[in-house]
Amino acid sequence: MIHGKNLIGFEQFANGTQTFQTYNPADLRELPELFVQATDAEVDLAVEKATAAYGTYKKTSGTAKASFLRAIADEIEELGTALIERASAESGLPEGRITGERGRTVNQLRLFASVLEDGSWVEASIDPAMADRKPLPRPDIRKMLQPVGPVVVFTASNFPLAFSTAGGDTASALAAGNPVIVKVHPYHAGTNELVVGAISRAAQKCGMPDGVFSSLNSSDFTVGQRLVLHPAVKSVAFTGSFGGGKSLYELAQSREEPIPVFAEMGSVNPVLLLPEKMKGETENLAATIAGSVNLGAGQFCTNPGVLVALKSNETDAFKSALVKQVQALAPQAMLHENIFKNYTKKTAEIFAETAVVKLSESATGASTLKGRPAVANITGADFLAKPDLVEEIFGPFSILIECADEAELMDVLKKFKGQLTGSVLGAGDDFRKFESHIRVLQEVVGRLIFNGVPTGVEVCYSMHHGGPYPSTTDSRFTSVGVDAIKRFVRPVSFQDAPDDYLPDELKNANPLNIWRRVDGELTRKTI
Amino acid sequence: MIHGKNLIGFEQFANGTQTFQTYNPADLRELPELFVQATDAEVDLAVEKATAAYGTYKKTSGTAKASFLRAIADEIEELGTALIERASAESGLPEGRITGERGRTVNQLRLFASVLEDGSWVEASIDPAMADRKPLPRPDIRKMLQPVGPVVVFTASNFPLAFSTAGGDTASALAAGNPVIVKVHPYHAGTNELVVGAISRAAQKCGMPDGVFSSLNSSDFTVGQRLVLHPAVKSVAFTGSFGGGKSLYELAQSREEPIPVFAEMGSVNPVLLLPEKMKGETENLAATIAGSVNLGAGQFCTNPGVLVALKSNETDAFKSALVKQVQALAPQAMLHENIFKNYTKKTAEIFAETAVVKLSESATGASTLKGRPAVANITGADFLAKPDLVEEIFGPFSILIECADEAELMDVLKKFKGQLTGSVLGAGDDFRKFESHIRVLQEVVGRLIFNGVPTGVEVCYSMHHGGPYPSTTDSRFTSVGVDAIKRFVRPVSFQDAPDDYLPDELKNANPLNIWRRVDGELTRKTI
Repeated sequence: MIHGKNLIGFEQFANGTQTFQTYNPADLRELPELFVQATDAEVDLAVEKATAAYGTYKKTSGTAKASFLRAIADEIEELGTALIERASAESGLPEGRITGERGRTVNQLRLFASVLEDGSWVEASIDPAMADRKPLPRPDIRKMLQPVGPVVVFTASNFPLAFSTAGGDTASALAAGNPVIVKVHPYHAGTNELVVGAISRAAQKCGMPDGVFSSLNSSDFTVGQRLVLHPAVKSVAFTGSFGGGKSLYELAQSREEPIPVFAEMGSVNPVLLLPEKMKGETENLAATIAGSVNLGAGQFCTNPGVLVALKSNETDAFKSALVKQVQALAPQAMLHENIFKNYTKKTAEIFAETAVVKLSESATGASTLKGRPAVANITGADFLAKPDLVEEIFGPFSILIECADEAELMDVLKKFKGQLTGSVLGAGDDFRKFESHIRVLQEVVGRLIFNGVPTGVEVCYSMHHGGPYPSTTDSRFTSVGVDAIKRFVRPVSFQDAPDDYLPDELKNANPLNIWRRVDGELTRKTI
Repeated sequence: MIHGKNLIGFEQFANGTQTFQTYNPADLRELPELFVQATDAEVDLAVEKATAAYGTYKKTSGTAKASFLRAIADEIEELGTALIERASAESGLPEGRITGERGRTVNQLRLFASVLEDGSWVEASIDPAMADRKPLPRPDIRKMLQPVGPVVVFTASNFPLAFSTAGGDTASALAAGNPVIVKVHPYHAGTNELVVGAISRAAQKCGMPDGVFSSLNSSDFTVGQRLVLHPAVKSVAFTGSFGGGKSLYELAQSREEPIPVFAEMGSVNPVLLLPEKMKGETENLAATIAGSVNLGAGQFCTNPGVLVALKSNETDAFKSALVKQVQALAPQAMLHENIFKNYTKKTAEIFAETAVVKLSESATGASTLKGRPAVANITGADFLAKPDLVEEIFGPFSILIECADEAELMDVLKKFKGQLTGSVLGAGDDFRKFESHIRVLQEVVGRLIFNGVPTGVEVCYSMHHGGPYPSTTDSRFTSVGVDAIKRFVRPVSFQDAPDDYLPDELKNANPLNIWRRVDGELTRKTI
């Protein structure tokens, strides 16, 4: 079944000599198939095919692109249990979780299809000519978003489907009208290959151009670096570590023509526990937090890595409850040996800090790659003296910062760097009383959550999954939800263009019946 | 009248010892006033005041910000002839041009005021909760754009008013809710000071916070560099040379937290002259092009620096007509000795190239700083062999690339780097016949103009003034028109936020009656 080759346009290539295998993190069993790393020539060929395909694909209608995305979703579902089993085997994630993630993946594809069918996403804007304007006539100016060219997608380790081969980055880049080249995550090469087959079949069934999609295997940095440096590549999407995202960003900036890198690099996602809430629901709160910390073995970019509270008897009670909860948690297999080793090393390091008190870890010990859930404690004063202590530890870990008073709490909140999310849990008068604190937190987050945990990211119109640096490289764009499409477009204005040259979105007759801004007013009317 | 000091918030500072003067490029006469360069401490103070002001200003309502912008416009008009005379004296530009530019400046401020009064620009989006959704309930998610923090504006040399102290960058950054620090252009320090006074009076009359606006004098790079590297500065706008923009961009990327730099760096703005058009209107066409080349002594980022045509008898006739037109042009004073020297040097260099034929220059010779309009000629083959020959020469110069046939024309168009604009002049069947050529040009421009010259940039909703690199550092954003406001904002999502915490734009009752996307549908309805 699994052939281990690269897909470049509609053709398979395996001219390289370097191979790699994947393995199951749950039992450390190596999976038998060999994946052949793409050669330099294959990388270049993928970009050339993408560039050629772009000429056709950028002109493809919204409805045709929508059919393509729907066909990808259908083909992924057609893969059935083979995909679920393979993704589970390569990630160590339970089949239930993978099944849910497949649902999210096909829903995302269909959501972008519906956005394309609606058509209004292009932000069409028309300022008709004013021939009689003084001192000079006004020309006719029309504007809309257009695609940018080949996009390189680096797939994520922690979402083998929803942030991977046919995940949100690929779906939004294809929806925008750009060919996509996927740099395969070496942990999930088999899962990738199955999904690549689905995309390729969908592209051929829908008459999409050869080169609209390619997938390149790689177990080191060479393929990704060559892709990012290729002059014909116009944009890059990445989900992963701060180190990885930062290097790709710097590489892209070093080009003669710098290009955007949308790197989603995770964060500590501070959770502010307010006093009234602490009073009422200590046990519930501890259970909710512990569950969020250990969800997916803590391997979410929205994992609650930091808790913040005021010192009080209630906070002490919360700590006791949290200790109990964490002790009872069952460790889960982490995604990879490197991730497990890193988690074990980082938690050991932070526990060795004199300012840090280890509160608890799960009673069940770590076995194979199972990361042991753990929580720790630090005073606000110690955190303020050494804020760099509190950095993301990828895994089921969280540290509680206990503040002496409201002023110290404010200072602590002001120390946080850019975050994907910030959560505030309050009751009674909490939100009003701590409003100025919450507004400080709002300033450094992409999403502000009230009475909820940060894990769980809705795929919808209003989602913003993109916080200030260093949580992402570009806080102006989201990697989740409908507006993720805006990462891979740029506006173009047309001045006094003949109606038949204009894209349908800007023609006088508004043949697509989309919302347009005409002289600044939203309308569906014709010109 | 002119005091030469820095304005930091509402206070004047002049603790520095380094001073500079401005002079009139039309007669090389030095203007008497001394301007005191800002010290490091003054730079830091401006950023501190801006940061403090941000806390208040970001919460200021749209209507209050609109009143502020309108008050700035009124105060600028109140300056009367003093401003016109000073700006003309410091730029060498005729008073008529400066009066027109003042009109554009106050119109821009009032346009942004109207955008704020309307309120819909924040892209409010609401996905209400679905408590019954399976398998999990959907939380309430709402999103809108919010300001980012202190913005540094580097003012342009070629627009002493409209792209300067109270120009489009300042207007859009203030409109978005960000304090602004202007790094004064040393050529126009007196003009700046008059406008700074207007902004300061407007801010005080409207009760805006101290620090919402500051202006720092500088005749070297130190002040600008310190500003860009200050951790509390969140965004930078610049209009000027490629070298200047690129250094600021790289400086901003070198920070621990990289920040956006919106640098508008100009381009050669190719003008494609198509055969049918050439046949009918040789004389008119030559007059139009010559006028556009010499407009404002060619010192526009949209100056038509390159003409492209097919070799033909008509093109020969066009060249003869262009030669006559250019010879008859009157040289105008350039903005500064450096600009004039650079123009003279660059034109001499390109004329010395063996592949380049000097077609014509104005009969009137250069005197003081008057740049002599000139046009040159190169074959398509020679351009393809050495495309770097054709780079922007800031001033009244243009080079005609004559292509042997349609295939060579295509190759030439494919060689162009990112451009602010591309123009196509055609008649009869031209646009249809050359559609594939035009679409190649479209791919590298921010604005595609049909039967018009690139000079003249409308300030409207549909304007996109921002082409692919190297014409700007970020082709996704415009520096002219309403959407310029989007440079200085980022989206934030609110999840399950109490109604009274939410900004008015996202409250259930829609108290501002703005357009919002609710479950993906545009509406003004309440929730």
